Amino acid sequence: MGVVKLIEIKEEILAENKELASELRESLASVGVYLVNLMSSPGSGKTSLILRSLERLKDGHQISVIEGDIDSMVDAEAVAAQGVEAVQIKTGGSCHLNAAMVEKGLGQLDLANLDLVFLENVGNLVCPAESDTGAHLDVAILSVPEGDDKPLKYPLIFRTCDALMVNKVDCLDYFDFDREALVRRFRRLNEVAPLFEISCKTGQGIEEWCDWLENRLSVDR
Amino acid sequence: MGVVKLIEIKEEILAENKELASELRESLASVGVYLVNLMSSPGSGKTSLILRSLERLKDGHQISVIEGDIDSMVDAEAVAAQGVEAVQIKTGGSCHLNAAMVEKGLGQLDLANLDLVFLENVGNLVCPAESDTGAHLDVAILSVPEGDDKPLKYPLIFRTCDALMVNKVDCLDYFDFDREALVRRFRRLNEVAPLFEISCKTGQGIEEWCDWLENRLSVDR
Repeated sequence: MGVVKLIEIKEEILAENKELASELRESLASVGVYLVNLMSSPGSGKTSLILRSLERLKDGHQISVIEGDIDSMVDAEAVAAQGVEAVQIKTGGSCHLNAAMVEKGLGQLDLANLDLVFLENVGNLVCPAESDTGAHLDVAILSVPEGDDKPLKYPLIFRTCDALMVNKVDCLDYFDFDREALVRRFRRLNEVAPLFEISCKTGQGIEEWCDWLENRLSVDR
Repeated sequence: MGVVKLIEIKEEILAENKELASELRESLASVGVYLVNLMSSPGSGKTSLILRSLERLKDGHQISVIEGDIDSMVDAEAVAAQGVEAVQIKTGGSCHLNAAMVEKGLGQLDLANLDLVFLENVGNLVCPAESDTGAHLDVAILSVPEGDDKPLKYPLIFRTCDALMVNKVDCLDYFDFDREALVRRFRRLNEVAPLFEISCKTGQGIEEWCDWLENRLSVDR
């Protein structure tokens, strides 16, 4: 019984969220701000990817970061240490960011003086993929130690992402990770999103990702 | 608006679930079956821990496995390949197992001839910790590549688990993982649950974990 009820209410809430997210996306576009939502399991490298991207992009762009976590400020502090403004959203218990939370985070930023905002979602490969944050670009990260079978088990995030980052490729030799199997499983779900092999540890692939992101920014914004 | 509504309904559903879970726990105890719920992020090693534990325990115990995944049968097939009965629950989109799903899975098993059932939850460090499955023992797994800061960000699962497995310790040298910081952060949330350092790749720590589990089985069951 509980299950059926949950699904109906969930759909209603998702529909309300979708509407707010669309409004948010349009209103950001009207002031020239591009919002990039990063999603992955805990510890796949969302914060590391943001830090690497800031190194490469912060001279040419006005960037801020919104960090979403159930608890703690450690990610926002890491961003601030790079001299970039960061807003920490503590979700309490919530397993993902929704558009209302993102709207509150954006309210803390001086949008008129920004062109790019990175949004770090709660570490979770399931729920964030269901909830539109209002972002213009949804980026999924999978790290090598998690395994090449994840698209089989968590298809939605791979199906809906605009780019897939395969992080921690520096340790490919250490883990039993079949790159071709991963690509094949990903392509069955998503034919268009680019796949970047990166290492936030060594910097591999960061240049290509940032070039691509800058191109999307100039085309989409 | 949506957010407030969600929380109220969620609490109601969690209360209903809790009741069913308690019934399930009692009814399993009455037929001498001990249910062990394994929770972690995707790719932390839930299936590998089950496979290693089966190697060590299957001669002395009658064991079955219930695998929970959003999609795919790969985990159940891996268990079945060891000659152990496995039931695969496909949750559709749901991000965690609840007691009603577990009840259905148990319905597929010949409980009279079992003493131990492993339950592999959906890969997610957030939502499974909120939802009682009816298990007698809740085990959390954190793998080294995920990082030592996870108790700060995802406190609930660390607070409520009955045992914490730190998996993939074979690659401790490769990652920037501070064991002492992890233990300190874990102990701030949980003073009693044992912490096992294991490697499902090399077998390290599996003997200690299985000894402890057998002891719990003989005391609790």
